[in-house]
Amino acid sequence: MNSHVSQLVDFLRFPSISTDKAHADDVSACGEWLFQKFRAMGLAAEVHGTPGHPIVVARTARTEPRANRRTVLIYGHYDVQPVDPLELWNSPPFEPHISDDGIITARGASDNKGQIFAHILGIEEALAKTDGNLPVDVIFLVEGEEEIGSPNLAHFLRTNREALRCDVIVISDTGMIARGWPTLTYSLRGIGSLEIKVSGPAMDLHSGIYGGAVLNPIAALARLLSSLHDENGRVAVDGFYDEVAPLQAWEKETWAKLPTDDARIRELTGAPKLFGEAGFSAVERIWARPTLEINGIGGGYQGEGTKTVIPREAFAKLTFRLVPNQRPQQVVKQVQSHLARVAAQMPAVRVEFSGGHTGEPFLTDPHSVNGQAAQRALHRVFGKEKEIALIREGGSIPILQDFKEILCPEILLLGLAMPDCRAHSPNETFLLENFEAGIRLNQALLEELAR
Amino acid sequence: MNSHVSQLVDFLRFPSISTDKAHADDVSACGEWLFQKFRAMGLAAEVHGTPGHPIVVARTARTEPRANRRTVLIYGHYDVQPVDPLELWNSPPFEPHISDDGIITARGASDNKGQIFAHILGIEEALAKTDGNLPVDVIFLVEGEEEIGSPNLAHFLRTNREALRCDVIVISDTGMIARGWPTLTYSLRGIGSLEIKVSGPAMDLHSGIYGGAVLNPIAALARLLSSLHDENGRVAVDGFYDEVAPLQAWEKETWAKLPTDDARIRELTGAPKLFGEAGFSAVERIWARPTLEINGIGGGYQGEGTKTVIPREAFAKLTFRLVPNQRPQQVVKQVQSHLARVAAQMPAVRVEFSGGHTGEPFLTDPHSVNGQAAQRALHRVFGKEKEIALIREGGSIPILQDFKEILCPEILLLGLAMPDCRAHSPNETFLLENFEAGIRLNQALLEELAR
Repeated sequence: MNSHVSQLVDFLRFPSISTDKAHADDVSACGEWLFQKFRAMGLAAEVHGTPGHPIVVARTARTEPRANRRTVLIYGHYDVQPVDPLELWNSPPFEPHISDDGIITARGASDNKGQIFAHILGIEEALAKTDGNLPVDVIFLVEGEEEIGSPNLAHFLRTNREALRCDVIVISDTGMIARGWPTLTYSLRGIGSLEIKVSGPAMDLHSGIYGGAVLNPIAALARLLSSLHDENGRVAVDGFYDEVAPLQAWEKETWAKLPTDDARIRELTGAPKLFGEAGFSAVERIWARPTLEINGIGGGYQGEGTKTVIPREAFAKLTFRLVPNQRPQQVVKQVQSHLARVAAQMPAVRVEFSGGHTGEPFLTDPHSVNGQAAQRALHRVFGKEKEIALIREGGSIPILQDFKEILCPEILLLGLAMPDCRAHSPNETFLLENFEAGIRLNQALLEELAR
Repeated sequence: MNSHVSQLVDFLRFPSISTDKAHADDVSACGEWLFQKFRAMGLAAEVHGTPGHPIVVARTARTEPRANRRTVLIYGHYDVQPVDPLELWNSPPFEPHISDDGIITARGASDNKGQIFAHILGIEEALAKTDGNLPVDVIFLVEGEEEIGSPNLAHFLRTNREALRCDVIVISDTGMIARGWPTLTYSLRGIGSLEIKVSGPAMDLHSGIYGGAVLNPIAALARLLSSLHDENGRVAVDGFYDEVAPLQAWEKETWAKLPTDDARIRELTGAPKLFGEAGFSAVERIWARPTLEINGIGGGYQGEGTKTVIPREAFAKLTFRLVPNQRPQQVVKQVQSHLARVAAQMPAVRVEFSGGHTGEPFLTDPHSVNGQAAQRALHRVFGKEKEIALIREGGSIPILQDFKEILCPEILLLGLAMPDCRAHSPNETFLLENFEAGIRLNQALLEELAR
């Protein structure tokens, strides 16, 4: 392991913060380091410039006609999140620190350098063991813009569709449900957004001089927002749930056995009580039920004390987390139509909508041929006796839709990050036991996928 | 008139901005100037220091036992509002500008230097005409802290109750309904306030990782706020209207003839439509009906674009404008109880209340003996043929309650400011015709009050 960890440390030393222009050279240098690593492994590697940060592609040599062998594309990213607030880090974010109990702390440790590098070292080992004769063809696609929304990835996939042709895509950028629990994530929620602006008087009005004459935009906004849920937390928009794929019996059964429950989730949130749709556990609601959240609201005077104004306008920012088989653009339209109907009852204010960007939900079958291969590989690495956590997650990875539409619908999400890994936060960690497991998992997975 | 106007210009030159510590000496200098003016008029004048800015008191010599003569206390203030934004002024705020059509522009022109100084010059003229033999005793009480809420006035009134004993209080710090329309304001709304804070999770949560598990504090706040009004704009709090003194038939009739109507008010507000309680005109709703306004709201992410958080908390700031005979403290309790009942249905969030300061509504009878005297005086000055506007106003003057409780319940509000005088705003104006009318009104009023 020593060489593996010391190489990971080298990889983690690059401050490859994609959102910060001051770090553009660091991002490039990190991509170049990866390119050299792939070359040293004997892969055919290329660095592709983009209007932003480079995409590194590497592939094993094809020894047989494509028809006779499967091709596995492994996706990851070498860029990382910013590090602020720096003062909260216990060690410098780009000077990886390894604790006695095998935890490496550095920005990007889990997200995503540790995870993608386990795959890379897995292939390196497999190449050595098999004398270059892997059971499948492998393509690595490692980008430098994931943390800024992958603005150049879809275009790259489209223009390199032939070269990137593959039978299955493997991504390790999600989480394990708990330490020692092999985890396969087979669904993610999609997303939709909508911003509402309510405007009334031409200027902030004195509430003494005009109070009573006009409709207060904040009151109108509150009425709009309170129409969106019923008292039990169910979204009260017509048709909102129409296309929600019902939770399967096996999902309810499986999830009930996972090492997480309502009590644990309440504790993590710090909320006085959990709350949501009746008939579902918190995990079920987060993973398999859609939500409509108000992410922000503002209007009028927000300073100390009182200021007796009737504000000229108020706004709220909404996003929806959507599940299979909801179509985000349709849901945004449904919510907007609902709000427009309520607004039509209030002609004393103007209601405008903006935003509306969307990302599709993601669902695969964990019991498909590829899903079963992944489960076999997880069993080989983590132990046959271990229950495999088949989970959905509540978050969204919008680029999966691009992979699905442009390259290949078969996607495996095999996460190695712990729930408490602090991705995007100070003191991001990765378990070295998961790093090592990832290296072995890669090899087991390729063998199982080749069967 | 030339001497009158040039003295007013001198008075207006003092930048007596009470809220700005940098102007403390200017405020004192202005009070001292006033004190010297009173002395020059032959009045017994005093400057009373306070923990803030001085109160100037002046009185005519008492020539008979108090029982035989009425005492009129004239209240005003010599402090002014700040001037920002300075760049919007067409002439420097403390270099009074007089236009060809007789409009003087300066900070404090209407609010309140022009109006109180008309009273002072009225007494000066009357003293000259009567050889010091006024028909009533007069006390001037001119403070320097009105624009910061008169923090030291009530204490001063209490500790000088005997010396300030009077039969009627005259204040010219309100408005005329329109140019050439003599106006007597006989009622003002009171005020109450309440701030609501709704908190849920211990920190802002990722809406993907936790969305579905907790009650969103903004959604809970929207539900609280939307419970406060019905769809027709009526406040939906139990008991809110119970003690509202019904609008009298004569008030509806009189107000219908005033030179203001719904169309004019809609135009002034710039709102798409007027809105409020059914069965009342906008003027009636502003002057004689209570309101519950949301002055501000905030929570979660308010920047550009989207941030997918479930915020840890959200807040709203409420104030109520209250009418006779509502008791503000009781109304604040009613609203808080109402909200607490709605909150009790949402144990998944914590709801806290703060604020709660109040000011009593004000009502006198414009047809009382003093009210009739004021109307006769207005007729004498503005013309017998003129209709006198008997109005309420929607704003609040909380110190009236102190005057009422500590000194004397008889209060006359005789405003000389125009609706478009821009008090508190750049380019504040006062009509010199009203300044001159105010000087004559003072003398006519003292004569009528002495009858």
